[in-house]
Amino acid sequence: MRTIRVIGIGAGNPEHMTVQAINALNRSDVLLIPTKGDEKAFLADARRDICDRFLTNPACRILDYAVPVRRADGSYEDGVNDWHRAIAAIYERTLLNAVGEDETLGLLVWGDPMLYDSTLRIIDHVRTAGRVAFDMEVIPGITSVQALCASHGIALNRIGLPVEITTGRRLAEGWPDSSRDALVMLDGVQAFRTVTDPEAEIWWGAYLGTPHEILLSGRLAEMAETISETRRTAREKHGWIMDTYLIRRPATEAEEGPA
Amino acid sequence: MRTIRVIGIGAGNPEHMTVQAINALNRSDVLLIPTKGDEKAFLADARRDICDRFLTNPACRILDYAVPVRRADGSYEDGVNDWHRAIAAIYERTLLNAVGEDETLGLLVWGDPMLYDSTLRIIDHVRTAGRVAFDMEVIPGITSVQALCASHGIALNRIGLPVEITTGRRLAEGWPDSSRDALVMLDGVQAFRTVTDPEAEIWWGAYLGTPHEILLSGRLAEMAETISETRRTAREKHGWIMDTYLIRRPATEAEEGPA
Ligand SMILES: C[S@@+](CC[C@H](N)C(=O)[O-])C[C@H]1O[C@@H](n2cnc3c(N)ncnc32)[C@H](O)[C@@H]1O
Ligand SMILES: C[S@@+](CC[C@H](N)C(=O)[O-])C[C@H]1O[C@@H](n2cnc3c(N)ncnc32)[C@H](O)[C@@H]1O
Repeated sequence: MRTIRVIGIGAGNPEHMTVQAINALNRSDVLLIPTKGDEKAFLADARRDICDRFLTNPACRILDYAVPVRRADGSYEDGVNDWHRAIAAIYERTLLNAVGEDETLGLLVWGDPMLYDSTLRIIDHVRTAGRVAFDMEVIPGITSVQALCASHGIALNRIGLPVEITTGRRLAEGWPDSSRDALVMLDGVQAFRTVTDPEAEIWWGAYLGTPHEILLSGRLAEMAETISETRRTAREKHGWIMDTYLIRRPATEAEEGPA
Repeated sequence: MRTIRVIGIGAGNPEHMTVQAINALNRSDVLLIPTKGDEKAFLADARRDICDRFLTNPACRILDYAVPVRRADGSYEDGVNDWHRAIAAIYERTLLNAVGEDETLGLLVWGDPMLYDSTLRIIDHVRTAGRVAFDMEVIPGITSVQALCASHGIALNRIGLPVEITTGRRLAEGWPDSSRDALVMLDGVQAFRTVTDPEAEIWWGAYLGTPHEILLSGRLAEMAETISETRRTAREKHGWIMDTYLIRRPATEAEEGPA
Protein backbone atom coordinates (compact mmCIF):
# COMPACT_ATOMS: atom_id res chain seq x y z
CA MET A 1 0.00 0.00 0.00
CA ARG A 2 1.19 3.52 -0.80
CA THR A 3 1.26 6.10 1.99
CA ILE A 4 0.77 9.84 1.89
CA ARG A 5 2.53 11.47 4.82
CA VAL A 6 1.45 15.02 5.56
CA ILE A 7 4.24 16.69 7.51
CA GLY A 8 3.81 19.92 9.48
CA ILE A 9 7.03 21.91 9.20
CA GLY A 10 6.33 24.79 11.59
CA ALA A 11 5.42 28.35 10.81
CA GLY A 12 8.64 30.17 9.95
CA ASN A 13 11.52 29.01 12.11
CA PRO A 14 13.21 25.87 10.72
CA GLU A 15 13.90 24.89 14.35
CA HIS A 16 10.15 24.41 14.79
CA MET A 17 10.74 21.04 13.12
CA THR A 18 9.96 18.20 15.50
CA VAL A 19 11.98 15.01 15.81
CA GLN A 20 8.91 13.21 14.46
CA ALA A 21 8.79 15.48 11.39
CA ILE A 22 12.53 15.07 10.71
CA ASN A 23 12.15 11.31 10.87
CA ALA A 24 9.04 11.43 8.68
CA LEU A 25 10.95 13.47 6.10
CA ASN A 26 13.79 10.99 6.01
CA ARG A 27 11.49 7.99 5.81
CA SER A 28 9.66 9.36 2.77
CA ASP A 29 10.61 7.99 -0.65
CA VAL A 30 9.35 11.01 -2.56
CA LEU A 31 8.84 14.60 -1.41
CA LEU A 32 6.52 16.76 -3.49
CA ILE A 33 7.29 20.46 -3.16
CA PRO A 34 5.11 23.22 -4.62
CA THR A 35 6.69 26.17 -6.33
CA LYS A 36 4.47 29.19 -6.53
CA GLY A 37 4.52 32.69 -7.95
CA ASP A 38 6.51 35.62 -6.60
CA GLU A 39 4.49 36.17 -3.45
CA LYS A 40 5.00 32.70 -2.12
CA ALA A 41 8.57 32.12 -3.27
CA PHE A 42 9.43 32.56 0.40
CA LEU A 43 7.34 29.52 1.34
CA ALA A 44 8.95 27.37 -1.35
CA ASP A 45 12.39 28.53 -0.15
CA ALA A 46 11.50 27.71 3.44
CA ARG A 47 10.54 24.17 2.42
CA ARG A 48 13.81 23.78 0.51
CA ASP A 49 15.81 25.09 3.46
CA ILE A 50 14.18 22.50 5.67
CA CYS A 51 15.12 19.74 3.24
CA ASP A 52 18.68 21.06 2.98
CA ARG A 53 19.03 21.13 6.70
CA PHE A 54 17.18 18.05 7.88
CA LEU A 55 16.97 15.62 4.98
CA THR A 56 19.86 13.21 5.31
CA ASN A 57 18.45 10.26 3.38
CA PRO A 58 20.11 10.39 -0.06
CA ALA A 59 17.57 7.93 -1.50
CA CYS A 60 14.69 10.39 -1.07
CA ARG A 61 13.55 11.92 -4.38
CA ILE A 62 12.45 15.55 -4.39
CA LEU A 63 9.87 16.49 -7.02
CA ASP A 64 8.72 20.03 -7.80
CA TYR A 65 5.33 21.01 -9.11
CA ALA A 66 3.88 24.29 -10.24
CA VAL A 67 0.82 25.14 -8.18
CA PRO A 68 -2.15 25.53 -10.55
CA VAL A 69 -3.48 29.06 -10.92
CA ARG A 70 -6.77 29.71 -9.14
CA ARG A 71 -9.47 30.81 -11.59
CA ALA A 72 -10.94 34.22 -10.83
CA ASP A 73 -14.10 33.93 -12.96
CA GLY A 74 -17.17 32.14 -11.59
CA SER A 75 -18.01 31.94 -7.88
CA TYR A 76 -15.30 32.01 -5.26
CA GLU A 77 -16.47 28.66 -3.99
CA ASP A 78 -16.26 27.00 -7.41
CA GLY A 79 -12.85 28.59 -7.90
CA VAL A 80 -11.52 27.00 -4.69
CA ASN A 81 -13.07 23.62 -5.46
CA ASP A 82 -11.66 23.55 -8.99
CA TRP A 83 -8.30 24.56 -7.62
CA HIS A 84 -8.33 21.78 -5.01
CA ARG A 85 -9.27 19.27 -7.68
CA ALA A 86 -6.43 20.43 -9.92
CA ILE A 87 -3.94 19.89 -7.09
CA ALA A 88 -5.57 16.55 -6.27
CA ALA A 89 -4.89 15.49 -9.88
CA ILE A 90 -1.20 16.32 -9.38
CA TYR A 91 -1.04 14.26 -6.16
CA GLU A 92 -2.78 11.40 -7.94
CA ARG A 93 -0.46 11.46 -10.94
CA THR A 94 2.56 11.60 -8.64
CA LEU A 95 1.35 8.62 -6.65
CA LEU A 96 0.68 6.56 -9.77
CA ASN A 97 3.78 7.55 -11.76
CA ALA A 98 6.50 8.36 -9.25
CA VAL A 99 5.69 6.48 -6.03
CA GLY A 100 6.14 2.72 -5.88
CA GLU A 101 3.44 0.47 -4.44
CA ASP A 102 5.10 0.22 -1.02
CA GLU A 103 6.51 3.71 -1.03
CA THR A 104 5.65 6.89 0.82
CA LEU A 105 4.91 10.33 -0.59
CA GLY A 106 5.75 13.17 1.81
CA LEU A 107 3.98 16.53 1.61
CA LEU A 108 5.42 19.46 3.57
CA VAL A 109 2.77 21.71 5.08
CA TRP A 110 3.31 25.16 6.56
CA GLY A 111 2.57 25.23 10.29
CA ASP A 112 0.25 22.35 11.19
CA PRO A 113 -1.92 20.60 8.58
CA MET A 114 -4.96 20.86 10.89
CA LEU A 115 -5.10 24.67 10.85
CA TYR A 116 -6.58 26.58 7.89
CA ASP A 117 -4.79 24.42 5.38
CA SER A 118 -6.36 22.55 2.47
CA THR A 119 -3.94 19.63 2.08
CA LEU A 120 -6.12 17.14 3.99
CA ARG A 121 -9.15 18.19 1.96
CA ILE A 122 -7.24 17.81 -1.32
CA ILE A 123 -6.15 14.33 -0.26
CA ASP A 124 -9.86 13.55 0.34
CA HIS A 125 -10.47 14.35 -3.32
CA VAL A 126 -7.79 11.83 -4.32
CA ARG A 127 -9.34 9.23 -2.03
CA THR A 128 -12.85 9.87 -3.35
CA ALA A 129 -11.72 9.63 -6.96
CA GLY A 130 -10.69 6.07 -6.07
CA ARG A 131 -8.09 5.57 -8.77
CA VAL A 132 -5.22 4.90 -6.35
CA ALA A 133 -5.34 3.33 -2.89
CA PHE A 134 -3.22 4.79 -0.09
CA ASP A 135 -2.90 5.16 3.65
CA MET A 136 -2.49 8.58 5.23
CA GLU A 137 -0.38 9.73 8.14
CA VAL A 138 -0.31 13.24 9.63
CA ILE A 139 2.61 14.71 11.57
CA PRO A 140 1.74 17.82 13.61
CA GLY A 141 3.81 21.00 13.35
CA ILE A 142 4.13 24.23 15.31
CA THR A 143 1.42 26.66 14.15
CA SER A 144 1.62 30.43 13.70
CA VAL A 145 -0.75 30.69 16.69
CA GLN A 146 1.91 29.13 18.88
CA ALA A 147 4.69 31.21 17.32
CA LEU A 148 2.64 34.35 18.09
CA CYS A 149 2.02 33.42 21.73
CA ALA A 150 5.61 32.30 22.32
CA SER A 151 7.11 35.48 20.89
CA HIS A 152 4.81 37.65 22.98
CA GLY A 153 5.22 35.41 26.04
CA ILE A 154 1.44 35.16 26.46
CA ALA A 155 -1.19 32.47 26.95
CA LEU A 156 -3.83 31.94 24.26
CA ASN A 157 -6.60 31.54 26.82
CA ARG A 158 -7.36 33.09 30.14
CA ILE A 159 -7.88 30.68 33.07
CA GLY A 160 -10.88 28.49 32.27
CA LEU A 161 -12.11 30.79 29.48
CA PRO A 162 -12.69 29.78 25.86
CA VAL A 163 -10.95 31.30 22.86
CA GLU A 164 -12.20 31.46 19.30
CA ILE A 165 -9.87 30.84 16.39
CA THR A 166 -11.28 32.64 13.39
CA THR A 167 -10.52 34.45 10.14
CA GLY A 168 -10.32 38.17 9.34
CA ARG A 169 -13.37 37.86 7.12
CA ARG A 170 -15.44 36.40 9.99
CA LEU A 171 -14.24 38.92 12.53
CA ALA A 172 -15.18 41.74 10.16
CA GLU A 173 -18.76 40.42 10.31
CA GLY A 174 -18.89 40.89 14.07
CA TRP A 175 -17.24 39.88 17.33
CA PRO A 176 -17.83 36.20 18.27
CA ASP A 177 -20.73 35.90 20.71
CA SER A 178 -19.39 33.36 23.09
CA SER A 179 -15.78 34.35 23.63
CA ARG A 180 -13.90 37.48 24.69
CA ASP A 181 -10.67 36.23 23.15
CA ALA A 182 -10.25 35.89 19.40
CA LEU A 183 -7.21 34.60 17.53
CA VAL A 184 -7.40 35.88 13.98
CA MET A 185 -5.70 34.40 10.91
CA LEU A 186 -6.01 34.96 7.16
CA ASP A 187 -6.83 38.62 7.63
CA GLY A 188 -6.61 40.43 4.31
CA VAL A 189 -9.03 43.14 5.41
CA GLN A 190 -7.45 44.36 8.65
CA ALA A 191 -10.54 43.26 10.53
CA PHE A 192 -8.99 44.39 13.84
CA ARG A 193 -10.06 47.90 12.81
CA THR A 194 -13.70 46.85 13.17
CA VAL A 195 -13.33 46.05 16.89
CA THR A 196 -14.47 49.12 18.79
CA ASP A 197 -14.26 48.03 22.45
CA PRO A 198 -12.01 50.72 24.01
CA GLU A 199 -10.72 48.15 26.53
CA ALA A 200 -9.63 45.62 23.89
CA GLU A 201 -5.96 44.65 23.77
CA ILE A 202 -4.09 43.25 20.80
CA TRP A 203 -0.98 41.11 20.34
CA TRP A 204 0.04 41.21 16.69
CA GLY A 205 2.84 39.42 14.87
CA ALA A 206 4.07 39.23 11.28
CA TYR A 207 6.66 36.95 9.65
CA LEU A 208 6.71 35.05 12.94
CA GLY A 209 9.71 32.80 13.48
CA THR A 210 11.57 34.31 10.52
CA PRO A 211 14.41 36.83 10.60
CA HIS A 212 11.82 39.50 9.62
CA GLU A 213 9.55 38.90 12.63
CA ILE A 214 7.68 42.01 13.80
CA LEU A 215 5.77 42.17 17.09
CA LEU A 216 3.40 44.88 18.29
CA SER A 217 1.05 44.87 21.25
CA GLY A 218 -0.98 47.18 23.43
CA ARG A 219 -4.41 48.71 23.68
CA LEU A 220 -6.07 48.15 20.31
CA ALA A 221 -7.47 51.70 20.12
CA GLU A 222 -3.94 53.06 20.45
CA MET A 223 -2.19 50.46 18.29
CA ALA A 224 -4.54 50.01 15.32
CA GLU A 225 -3.01 52.84 13.30
CA THR A 226 0.56 51.74 14.03
CA ILE A 227 -0.22 48.16 13.07
CA SER A 228 -1.85 49.24 9.79
CA GLU A 229 1.10 51.44 8.96
CA THR A 230 3.68 48.81 9.95
CA ARG A 231 1.81 46.22 7.95
CA ARG A 232 1.70 48.45 4.85
CA THR A 233 5.40 49.35 5.03
CA ALA A 234 6.52 45.76 5.65
CA ARG A 235 4.35 44.46 2.86
CA GLU A 236 5.86 46.95 0.43
CA LYS A 237 9.37 46.12 1.55
CA HIS A 238 9.06 42.32 1.36
CA GLY A 239 6.43 42.07 -1.37
CA TRP A 240 4.21 39.87 0.86
CA ILE A 241 3.06 39.58 4.44
CA MET A 242 1.77 36.91 6.80
CA ASP A 243 0.34 38.17 10.07
CA THR A 244 -1.86 36.93 12.86
CA TYR A 245 -3.10 38.38 16.13
CA LEU A 246 -4.92 37.81 19.39
CA ILE A 247 -7.52 40.32 20.56
CA ARG A 248 -8.64 40.13 24.17
CA ARG A 249 -11.60 42.02 25.57
CA PRO A 250 -12.16 42.24 29.33
CA ALA A 251 -14.20 39.29 30.53
CA THR A 252 -17.52 40.04 32.13
CA GLU A 253 -17.85 39.26 35.84
CA ALA A 254 -20.02 36.22 35.06
CA GLU A 255 -17.37 34.79 32.78
CA GLU A 256 -14.47 35.05 35.19
CA GLY A 257 -13.30 32.38 37.56
CA PRO A 258 -10.47 29.87 37.38
CA ALA A 259 -10.72 26.35 36.01
CA MET B 1 20.42 39.00 33.97
CA ARG B 2 18.84 35.65 34.77
CA THR B 3 16.53 34.02 32.23
CA ILE B 4 13.53 31.77 32.70
CA ARG B 5 13.01 29.62 29.64
CA VAL B 6 9.61 27.99 29.38
CA ILE B 7 9.93 24.98 27.10
CA GLY B 8 6.96 23.21 25.50
CA ILE B 9 7.74 19.48 25.34
CA GLY B 10 4.77 18.19 23.36
CA ALA B 11 1.74 16.30 24.55
CA GLY B 12 2.78 12.68 24.97
CA ASN B 13 5.14 11.59 22.23
CA PRO B 14 8.78 12.45 23.04
CA GLU B 15 9.29 12.91 19.28
CA HIS B 16 7.03 15.97 19.50
CA MET B 17 10.16 17.75 20.76
CA THR B 18 11.24 20.46 18.34
CA VAL B 19 14.82 21.24 17.41
CA GLN B 20 14.30 24.58 19.16
CA ALA B 21 13.16 22.86 22.37
CA ILE B 22 16.07 20.41 22.32
CA ASN B 23 18.50 23.30 21.94
CA ALA B 24 16.72 25.27 24.67
CA LEU B 25 17.00 22.29 27.01
CA ASN B 26 20.71 21.97 26.38
CA ARG B 27 21.37 25.67 26.78
CA SER B 28 19.71 25.79 30.19
CA ASP B 29 21.94 25.78 33.26
CA VAL B 30 19.27 24.45 35.60
CA LEU B 31 16.14 22.43 34.84
CA LEU B 32 13.41 22.44 37.46
CA ILE B 33 11.21 19.36 37.29
CA PRO B 34 8.02 18.91 39.31
CA THR B 35 7.26 15.60 40.93
CA LYS B 36 3.61 15.11 41.76
CA GLY B 37 1.41 12.54 43.47
CA ASP B 38 0.37 9.20 42.02
CA GLU B 39 -1.96 10.51 39.32
CA LYS B 40 0.70 12.63 37.65
CA ALA B 41 3.72 10.36 38.09
CA PHE B 42 3.30 9.72 34.38
CA LEU B 43 3.92 13.38 33.59
CA ALA B 44 7.04 13.52 35.75
CA ASP B 45 8.29 10.34 34.06
CA ALA B 46 7.63 11.83 30.64
CA ARG B 47 9.72 14.89 31.52
CA ARG B 48 12.55 12.65 32.77
CA ASP B 49 12.40 10.54 29.61
CA ILE B 50 12.77 13.67 27.54
CA CYS B 51 15.83 14.72 29.54
CA ASP B 52 17.32 11.23 29.26
CA ARG B 53 16.80 11.21 25.54
CA PHE B 54 17.57 14.77 24.49
CA LEU B 55 19.72 16.38 27.18
CA THR B 56 23.34 16.00 26.14
CA ASN B 57 24.86 18.91 28.06
CA PRO B 58 26.49 17.35 31.16
CA ALA B 59 26.81 20.78 32.84
CA CYS B 60 23.03 21.17 33.12
CA ARG B 61 21.77 20.68 36.69
CA ILE B 62 18.41 18.95 37.18
CA LEU B 63 16.49 19.93 40.30
CA ASP B 64 13.32 18.26 41.54
CA TYR B 65 10.56 19.90 43.50
CA ALA B 66 7.43 18.57 45.12
CA VAL B 67 4.39 20.35 43.73
CA PRO B 68 2.55 22.02 46.63
CA VAL B 69 -0.82 20.53 47.49
CA ARG B 70 -3.83 22.56 46.41
CA ARG B 71 -5.99 23.54 49.39
CA ALA B 72 -9.54 22.30 49.18
CA ASP B 73 -11.07 24.60 51.83
CA GLY B 74 -12.07 28.16 50.90
CA SER B 75 -13.19 29.18 47.42
CA TYR B 76 -11.91 27.39 44.36
CA GLU B 77 -10.52 30.67 43.07
CA ASP B 78 -8.54 31.38 46.26
CA GLY B 79 -7.31 27.80 46.22
CA VAL B 80 -5.87 28.20 42.73
CA ASN B 81 -4.33 31.59 43.49
CA ASP B 82 -2.68 30.34 46.67
CA TRP B 83 -1.40 27.34 44.82
CA HIS B 84 0.10 29.49 42.04
CA ARG B 85 1.76 31.68 44.64
CA ALA B 86 3.24 28.67 46.40
CA ILE B 87 4.79 27.48 43.14
CA ALA B 88 5.94 31.03 42.38
CA ALA B 89 7.81 31.00 45.70
CA ILE B 90 9.60 27.82 44.60
CA TYR B 91 10.61 29.38 41.26
CA GLU B 92 11.84 32.47 43.10
CA ARG B 93 13.88 30.53 45.62
CA THR B 94 15.38 28.44 42.83
CA LEU B 95 16.35 31.54 40.86
CA LEU B 96 17.95 33.17 43.88
CA ASN B 97 19.67 30.13 45.35
CA ALA B 98 20.46 27.80 42.47
CA VAL B 99 20.70 29.93 39.33
CA GLY B 100 23.68 32.24 38.79
CA GLU B 101 23.20 35.85 37.69
CA ASP B 102 23.87 35.08 34.02
CA GLU B 103 22.33 31.66 34.04
CA THR B 104 19.13 30.23 32.65
CA LEU B 105 16.43 28.28 34.41
CA GLY B 106 14.51 25.90 32.14
CA LEU B 107 10.94 24.81 32.91
CA LEU B 108 9.45 21.92 30.97
CA VAL B 109 5.78 22.38 30.14
CA TRP B 110 3.39 19.71 28.86
CA GLY B 111 2.17 20.49 25.34
CA ASP B 112 2.52 24.21 24.66
CA PRO B 113 2.78 26.77 27.47
CA MET B 114 0.13 28.95 25.77
CA LEU B 115 -2.69 26.41 26.13
CA TYR B 116 -4.51 25.93 29.44
CA ASP B 117 -1.31 25.94 31.43
CA SER B 118 -0.49 28.13 34.42
CA THR B 119 3.29 28.38 34.13
CA LEU B 120 3.26 31.82 32.46
CA ARG B 121 0.85 33.11 35.10
CA ILE B 122 3.01 31.75 37.91
CA ILE B 123 6.04 33.47 36.41
CA ASP B 124 3.99 36.71 36.43
CA HIS B 125 3.67 36.31 40.21
CA VAL B 126 7.47 36.05 40.50
CA ARG B 127 7.87 39.15 38.32
CA THR B 128 5.29 41.11 40.30
CA ALA B 129 6.89 40.20 43.62
CA GLY B 130 9.97 41.99 42.28
CA ARG B 131 12.59 40.25 44.41
CA VAL B 132 14.54 38.84 41.48
CA ALA B 133 14.96 40.28 37.99
CA PHE B 134 14.83 37.98 34.98
CA ASP B 135 14.10 37.77 31.28
CA MET B 136 11.65 35.26 29.93
CA GLU B 137 11.70 33.18 26.77
CA VAL B 138 8.97 30.81 25.57
CA ILE B 139 9.51 27.84 23.26
CA PRO B 140 6.31 26.48 21.67
CA GLY B 141 5.47 22.77 21.80
CA ILE B 142 3.02 20.46 20.06
CA THR B 143 -0.33 20.62 21.89
CA SER B 144 -2.82 17.84 22.58
CA VAL B 145 -5.15 19.59 20.09
CA GLN B 146 -2.63 18.92 17.34
CA ALA B 147 -1.99 15.37 18.53
CA LEU B 148 -5.75 14.74 18.39
CA CYS B 149 -6.16 16.11 14.86
CA ALA B 150 -3.04 14.36 13.54
CA SER B 151 -4.06 10.96 14.93
CA HIS B 152 -7.56 11.28 13.45
CA GLY B 153 -6.21 12.78 10.22
CA ILE B 154 -8.66 15.68 10.46
CA ALA B 155 -8.58 19.48 10.25
CA LEU B 156 -9.49 21.52 13.33
CA ASN B 157 -11.52 23.99 11.29
CA ARG B 158 -13.78 23.72 8.27
CA ILE B 159 -12.91 26.00 5.33
CA GLY B 160 -13.23 29.58 6.48
CA LEU B 161 -15.18 28.66 9.61
CA PRO B 162 -14.19 29.50 13.19
CA VAL B 163 -13.56 26.97 15.94
CA GLU B 164 -13.86 27.47 19.67
CA ILE B 165 -11.33 25.99 22.05
CA THR B 166 -13.02 25.53 25.38
CA THR B 167 -13.23 23.48 28.58
CA GLY B 168 -15.61 20.71 29.62
CA ARG B 169 -17.04 22.96 32.33
CA ARG B 170 -17.91 25.66 29.77
CA LEU B 171 -19.37 23.24 27.25
CA ALA B 172 -21.60 21.79 29.96
CA GLU B 173 -23.08 25.29 30.36
CA GLY B 174 -24.16 25.34 26.73
CA TRP B 175 -22.94 25.11 23.15
CA PRO B 176 -20.85 28.15 22.06
CA ASP B 177 -23.06 30.62 20.17
CA SER B 178 -20.75 31.62 17.40
CA SER B 179 -19.14 28.38 16.30
CA ARG B 180 -20.32 24.95 15.16
CA ASP B 181 -16.96 23.38 15.99
CA ALA B 182 -15.76 23.02 19.56
CA LEU B 183 -12.46 21.58 20.74
CA VAL B 184 -12.84 20.56 24.36
CA MET B 185 -10.09 20.12 26.94
CA LEU B 186 -10.00 19.67 30.70
CA ASP B 187 -13.26 17.76 30.71
CA GLY B 188 -13.81 16.09 34.04
CA VAL B 189 -17.60 16.04 33.61
CA GLN B 190 -18.00 14.31 30.24
CA ALA B 191 -19.63 17.43 28.86
CA PHE B 192 -20.00 15.79 25.44
CA ARG B 193 -23.05 14.07 26.90
CA THR B 194 -24.81 17.42 27.13
CA VAL B 195 -24.66 17.99 23.36
CA THR B 196 -27.98 16.84 21.95
CA ASP B 197 -27.71 17.75 18.23
CA PRO B 198 -28.42 14.38 16.50
CA GLU B 199 -26.17 15.46 13.61
CA ALA B 200 -23.13 16.21 15.80
CA GLU B 201 -19.96 14.23 15.17
CA ILE B 202 -17.14 13.62 17.65
CA TRP B 203 -13.43 12.83 17.35
CA TRP B 204 -12.17 11.75 20.76
CA GLY B 205 -8.66 10.84 21.92
CA ALA B 206 -7.05 9.79 25.20
CA TYR B 207 -3.37 9.40 26.14
CA LEU B 208 -2.56 10.93 22.75
CA GLY B 209 0.96 10.38 21.51
CA THR B 210 1.65 7.77 24.19
CA PRO B 211 1.73 3.99 23.79
CA HIS B 212 -1.72 3.92 25.44
CA GLU B 213 -3.38 6.20 22.85
CA ILE B 214 -7.08 5.48 22.28
CA LEU B 215 -9.08 7.00 19.41
CA LEU B 216 -12.83 6.92 18.87
CA SER B 217 -14.94 8.84 16.40
CA GLY B 218 -18.37 8.87 14.81
CA ARG B 219 -21.81 10.29 15.29
CA LEU B 220 -21.92 11.61 18.86
CA ALA B 221 -25.37 10.16 19.58
CA GLU B 222 -24.04 6.71 18.72
CA MET B 223 -20.60 7.08 20.31
CA ALA B 224 -21.31 8.84 23.63
CA GLU B 225 -21.95 5.64 25.55
CA THR B 226 -18.89 3.88 24.10
CA ILE B 227 -16.67 6.84 24.91
CA SER B 228 -17.93 7.02 28.51
CA GLU B 229 -17.38 3.32 28.95
CA THR B 230 -13.94 3.33 27.30
CA ARG B 231 -12.96 6.31 29.41
CA ARG B 232 -14.07 4.61 32.63
CA THR B 233 -12.27 1.36 31.87
CA ALA B 234 -9.07 3.07 30.78
CA ARG B 235 -9.07 5.31 33.81
CA GLU B 236 -9.40 2.33 36.10
CA LYS B 237 -6.66 0.46 34.32
CA HIS B 238 -4.11 3.31 34.27
CA GLY B 239 -5.20 5.17 37.39
CA TRP B 240 -5.53 8.43 35.43
CA ILE B 241 -6.74 9.74 32.10
CA MET B 242 -6.12 12.70 29.81
CA ASP B 243 -8.57 13.10 26.98
CA THR B 244 -9.68 15.76 24.54
CA TYR B 245 -12.15 15.91 21.66
CA LEU B 246 -13.56 17.86 18.76
CA ILE B 247 -17.32 18.08 18.27
CA ARG B 248 -18.58 19.30 14.91
CA ARG B 249 -22.18 20.23 14.22
CA PRO B 250 -23.38 20.76 10.66
CA ALA B 251 -22.85 24.37 9.63
CA THR B 252 -25.91 26.35 8.71
CA GLU B 253 -26.24 27.41 5.08
CA ALA B 254 -25.37 31.01 5.99
CA GLU B 255 -22.14 29.93 7.66
CA GLU B 256 -20.83 27.83 4.80
CA GLY B 257 -18.55 29.00 2.01
CA PRO B 258 -14.84 28.68 1.46
CA ALA B 259 -12.19 31.18 2.57
C1 LIG C 1 -3.43 29.32 5.11
S1 LIG C 1 -3.16 29.75 6.77
C2 LIG C 1 -2.04 28.47 7.25
C3 LIG C 1 -1.83 28.37 8.74
C4 LIG C 1 -0.81 27.29 9.10
N1 LIG C 1 -1.29 25.95 8.75
C5 LIG C 1 -0.44 27.34 10.56
O1 LIG C 1 -0.46 26.26 11.19
O2 LIG C 1 -0.09 28.40 11.09
C6 LIG C 1 -2.15 31.17 6.58
C7 LIG C 1 -2.32 32.16 7.71
O3 LIG C 1 -1.55 31.74 8.81
C8 LIG C 1 -0.97 32.85 9.48
N2 LIG C 1 0.50 32.66 9.45
C9 LIG C 1 1.16 31.58 9.00
N3 LIG C 1 2.47 31.71 9.18
C10 LIG C 1 2.67 32.90 9.78
C11 LIG C 1 3.83 33.58 10.24
N4 LIG C 1 5.05 33.05 10.13
N5 LIG C 1 3.64 34.80 10.81
C12 LIG C 1 2.41 35.33 10.94
N6 LIG C 1 1.31 34.72 10.52
C13 LIG C 1 1.42 33.52 9.96
C14 LIG C 1 -1.45 34.08 8.77
O4 LIG C 1 -2.59 34.54 9.44
C15 LIG C 1 -1.80 33.55 7.42
O5 LIG C 1 -2.81 34.34 6.80
C1 LIG D 1 -3.86 21.57 31.85
S1 LIG D 1 -4.27 21.22 30.18
C2 LIG D 1 -2.72 21.34 29.42
C3 LIG D 1 -2.76 21.38 27.93
C4 LIG D 1 -1.37 21.41 27.31
N1 LIG D 1 -0.67 22.66 27.64
C5 LIG D 1 -1.41 21.23 25.80
O1 LIG D 1 -0.75 22.03 25.10
O2 LIG D 1 -2.03 20.29 25.33
C6 LIG D 1 -4.60 19.49 30.31
C7 LIG D 1 -5.64 18.99 29.30
O3 LIG D 1 -5.02 18.83 28.05
C8 LIG D 1 -5.53 17.69 27.39
N2 LIG D 1 -4.40 16.77 27.13
C9 LIG D 1 -3.10 17.02 27.38
N3 LIG D 1 -2.34 16.00 26.97
C10 LIG D 1 -3.17 15.08 26.43
C11 LIG D 1 -2.98 13.81 25.82
N4 LIG D 1 -1.74 13.30 25.66
N5 LIG D 1 -4.06 13.13 25.39
C12 LIG D 1 -5.30 13.65 25.52
N6 LIG D 1 -5.54 14.85 26.09
C13 LIG D 1 -4.48 15.55 26.55
C14 LIG D 1 -6.60 17.11 28.26
O4 LIG D 1 -7.85 17.67 27.84
C15 LIG D 1 -6.22 17.64 29.62
O5 LIG D 1 -7.36 17.77 30.45
